[in-house]
Amino acid sequence: MVRFDSSGIPPAARLRTPCALAPAEQPAWNPQLGSSMPARRYARPSTEIPALPHRDWPSNSLTRAPLWSSVDLRDGNQALPEPMDPRRKTAFFDLLLTMGFKDIEVGYPSASRDDFDFVRHLVRSDLIPDDVTISVFTPARPDLIDRTFEAIAGARRAMVHLCNATAPRWRDTVFGMTRQEVARLATRAATRVLRRADELGGTTLRFEYSPETFNNTEPEYALEVCDSVTALWDAAPDRPVTINLPATVETHTPNLFADQVEWMHRNLARRDSVILSVHPHNDRGTAVAATELALLAGADRVEGTLFGNGERTGNVCLATLALNLFSTGVDPQLDLSDIDGVRRTVEWCTRMPVHPRHPYVGDLVYTAFSGTHQDAVKKGLEAMDRAAGTSGTAAGEEPWQVPYLPVDPADLGRSYEAVVRINSQSGKSGVAFVLKTRYGFDLPRSFQAELAAEVQETVDTEGTEIGAPELWTVFSESFLHTGEPLSVVAHHPGHEATVELERTVGSERIRGQGTGPDATTAFLRALSRCGVFAELLDSGEHPGSEGTVAYRRLEVGGVPRWGAGTGGSDTEAELRALTAAACRALRASAAVAP
Amino acid sequence: MVRFDSSGIPPAARLRTPCALAPAEQPAWNPQLGSSMPARRYARPSTEIPALPHRDWPSNSLTRAPLWSSVDLRDGNQALPEPMDPRRKTAFFDLLLTMGFKDIEVGYPSASRDDFDFVRHLVRSDLIPDDVTISVFTPARPDLIDRTFEAIAGARRAMVHLCNATAPRWRDTVFGMTRQEVARLATRAATRVLRRADELGGTTLRFEYSPETFNNTEPEYALEVCDSVTALWDAAPDRPVTINLPATVETHTPNLFADQVEWMHRNLARRDSVILSVHPHNDRGTAVAATELALLAGADRVEGTLFGNGERTGNVCLATLALNLFSTGVDPQLDLSDIDGVRRTVEWCTRMPVHPRHPYVGDLVYTAFSGTHQDAVKKGLEAMDRAAGTSGTAAGEEPWQVPYLPVDPADLGRSYEAVVRINSQSGKSGVAFVLKTRYGFDLPRSFQAELAAEVQETVDTEGTEIGAPELWTVFSESFLHTGEPLSVVAHHPGHEATVELERTVGSERIRGQGTGPDATTAFLRALSRCGVFAELLDSGEHPGSEGTVAYRRLEVGGVPRWGAGTGGSDTEAELRALTAAACRALRASAAVAP
Repeated sequence: MVRFDSSGIPPAARLRTPCALAPAEQPAWNPQLGSSMPARRYARPSTEIPALPHRDWPSNSLTRAPLWSSVDLRDGNQALPEPMDPRRKTAFFDLLLTMGFKDIEVGYPSASRDDFDFVRHLVRSDLIPDDVTISVFTPARPDLIDRTFEAIAGARRAMVHLCNATAPRWRDTVFGMTRQEVARLATRAATRVLRRADELGGTTLRFEYSPETFNNTEPEYALEVCDSVTALWDAAPDRPVTINLPATVETHTPNLFADQVEWMHRNLARRDSVILSVHPHNDRGTAVAATELALLAGADRVEGTLFGNGERTGNVCLATLALNLFSTGVDPQLDLSDIDGVRRTVEWCTRMPVHPRHPYVGDLVYTAFSGTHQDAVKKGLEAMDRAAGTSGTAAGEEPWQVPYLPVDPADLGRSYEAVVRINSQSGKSGVAFVLKTRYGFDLPRSFQAELAAEVQETVDTEGTEIGAPELWTVFSESFLHTGEPLSVVAHHPGHEATVELERTVGSERIRGQGTGPDATTAFLRALSRCGVFAELLDSGEHPGSEGTVAYRRLEVGGVPRWGAGTGGSDTEAELRALTAAACRALRASAAVAP
Repeated sequence: MVRFDSSGIPPAARLRTPCALAPAEQPAWNPQLGSSMPARRYARPSTEIPALPHRDWPSNSLTRAPLWSSVDLRDGNQALPEPMDPRRKTAFFDLLLTMGFKDIEVGYPSASRDDFDFVRHLVRSDLIPDDVTISVFTPARPDLIDRTFEAIAGARRAMVHLCNATAPRWRDTVFGMTRQEVARLATRAATRVLRRADELGGTTLRFEYSPETFNNTEPEYALEVCDSVTALWDAAPDRPVTINLPATVETHTPNLFADQVEWMHRNLARRDSVILSVHPHNDRGTAVAATELALLAGADRVEGTLFGNGERTGNVCLATLALNLFSTGVDPQLDLSDIDGVRRTVEWCTRMPVHPRHPYVGDLVYTAFSGTHQDAVKKGLEAMDRAAGTSGTAAGEEPWQVPYLPVDPADLGRSYEAVVRINSQSGKSGVAFVLKTRYGFDLPRSFQAELAAEVQETVDTEGTEIGAPELWTVFSESFLHTGEPLSVVAHHPGHEATVELERTVGSERIRGQGTGPDATTAFLRALSRCGVFAELLDSGEHPGSEGTVAYRRLEVGGVPRWGAGTGGSDTEAELRALTAAACRALRASAAVAP
């Protein structure tokens, strides 16, 4: 009788009915742990989130790329244990240009001499292409604004990015200012920006304003401050202002951020003159999602970094966002076709590693270790090959249909080599895949199983992953090279084929010759003359780099074994495969014999 | 005149009105890049998503922890280049028990001898506590189901987790089966599970079914298969079945996954007898968000791993999910109060690194490098101290209010030492913070600025982060030890205080003595007898480990400088601070003298 167990299941899960969506009481399954983590110190974020009963964003979909803004050289750089030196900053800037970024925040010139000098270097050495706008970040302090304008003097085009924190915790604890005082701080700073801009000759300017800590600011207050600034800067459809909404510290679920963004999107004054931007951080590990939902909610532009470098847990990763769009058929408007090249540059510049499981770019993200996954990947790639063969679509243009791989690694400049790797969790498909793609041996199915068992034996013993070279060693030593106790001494092909074999038994050598209408018959007859009675169970062959690859499966003494052979002629390959199979079967049947 | 620039701005952003939420055409700002990335190969996911016009999940909130299920030893393990050996598996299992996990998937026993042996080891050696249910994973194949049951024979309680892929791409490419055939595969396997369970004596069993690739399966079809299985297993409120919805490969935005889960939640038969579970992967970098939205949508249980190990980009990270709940006041029901200890064990077991920016646990996630952030953190911690002093709340119980830190590092067993680190982007607050928290020197504000300038000089020159010891070197060598050209030869405190100084000028030594109503007056008079005329600008002191810490700021020849001193008595500390300040000012004024 089956006994079911309902202990340890929360009453809520047991009793909840489909219509009872309201959260039930805390499950009581592990109450003693609750007391060890002082969750009561932390506030629920609900009070600051606008009520948005008729939100539109959950029904929208992402059909085009947003405007991308890289803040790698500012927000990313300021969070590095070793900030980039000028050589690294220049390399990063060049990378961003190559990838197609047109909007690049290049520094926080009033904060450090390094940043100031780098901006001056870009301007003086004329390193900024005509279609690229550099942006410089400044807090809302008169002296720092002035210093910022010094940095961009002489640039053809630039964006001044003004920022001040607006959330209650910052107003109270950091500034000791009221709402009104912080709002005045923003408008005074915006006025100073305007004044300095008036004095700046020869530079085509754009303005950006960020109510820093937007996600923790009362929405009506954030709206009021933003509207004051866009009014002051006289935003118009032909001279739009960027209003950037930072989740400076990510503190709530991404749907709430989307609500906040949609509320701003609906209520902002001069919305047709505003480029609505978001700047998410990743403290809760949901920056990518928060950005995507914010785009559904009406944002036009995203500030982020490559591979998510930035303060603490980092900024949102622009590569992930772009490739998420790409993988659902949307042109990402950024060039990531050599993602490993991008990664190498970023790692060199930031001295920060990219994690092996980072979406799209990590070392392991296209890798299947488990047998079932490997089998599916192999079948998917084969189906792609067949489809390409019949549809006549150009290479690299077929709709991508491979299970377990969200994108074709080749589209990002990655090879298939790492797709299937072999460890103790791997099955025959992985083994077969590597052997086929790397060494050109396309084994029959039951051959795959036999090889996989031998490989598994090796890996179980050694406990670690084995690479393609080790797999090749197992395959070639066990299945391809005949070794003891049998070899072909001579053979003649044709209608009256002849094969002569030599068998070693202890110190004795036995020779036997056979003839027949084909090489296989002649081989089996020669084998019987050497005292070995074998039956051919299965066979296969395909063209190979040396001519032909043949597979033969023989049964000797009740023990079936596969062998493989290569050769310039079909017969040569066939005889080698037969010899290998016979040797394997003989050795195995000797091992099981009493 | 300010010139605004509207080139390079997509028409959509320029022209969009607040009511026009419909996506406009692709912005044309960078069309040439579009052609390099073949996005047209990838399908939009829309067809598979259920229409859910009146979704509830965006209005729900997370108010309690879900049931946690660790799949580290199965899904996590199978994705490792070097799967865990028995010692590592045991250590991981013990860690999970310590953290409070009650539901642990321990392996895929039909896939490898290692997994089989480990499950047998747990059962035979009686390593499974009474309140913990181990789970074993099996595909829907009769021989593998039988092998799975062999593995758990003798366990007191266990869960059998049956799984088969249901999505079209898998049905077509991997199995070559119709919808009906795949549904029959599931129900036949479920029947076999029931039969084997009937034969298994002494084990209290629970069942789990996963329509693998659920997120890419037609919802009606997934529902049909799940309902067949729960009917076959006769799920009832007192013997519930777990229905687990995997996002095997994450392919769309998390709001769509939430829609799918809510649709299942509303439509599942026997909902009161089902524990609705999700199993998200992180291919798009949104697994945490997808899980959170799925919980809003009605899921009761989450399968994931610690720090997101797992196939490709990994499974959802349970530590992040739990601490996201924690940081908004919800008891996480998992013990993460020693997160570094958890991390060390996981890193040792998996041989995979945790990224420096991984939420809550990465090396850098509580670190502020930038000056503004450091200033805010310092003020926040000081405000917490003041609040604790006045409220009488027990230590570690005060509501957390520190800017830029989503949680108190101390709640996760981390120290404050790494919170503020010093590089070229750092300002006076960071420097002051480290000096105060690590060395007990609480500098006056303008002293902080003077020290920060010296530190900045050092870091700008060397270009890298400086640690607390290097900061201490700068502080103690420049501000604390007097060095040349002045020293106190003798002093007597009291109402008629006396100080005798010696000044070195080239090879000459000048002595001067002064008296006065206090040591400072006596010092300044002695100094004038040595030919140095100084004015006291500012002072401060506080208790220190040796007795007293004093700060004095003197101006010599128009140059103001701070000095610090420590001593067993107030006078001793004061005289040292005065000497240090005088030495600094003398050296600086000599440097600027013509």
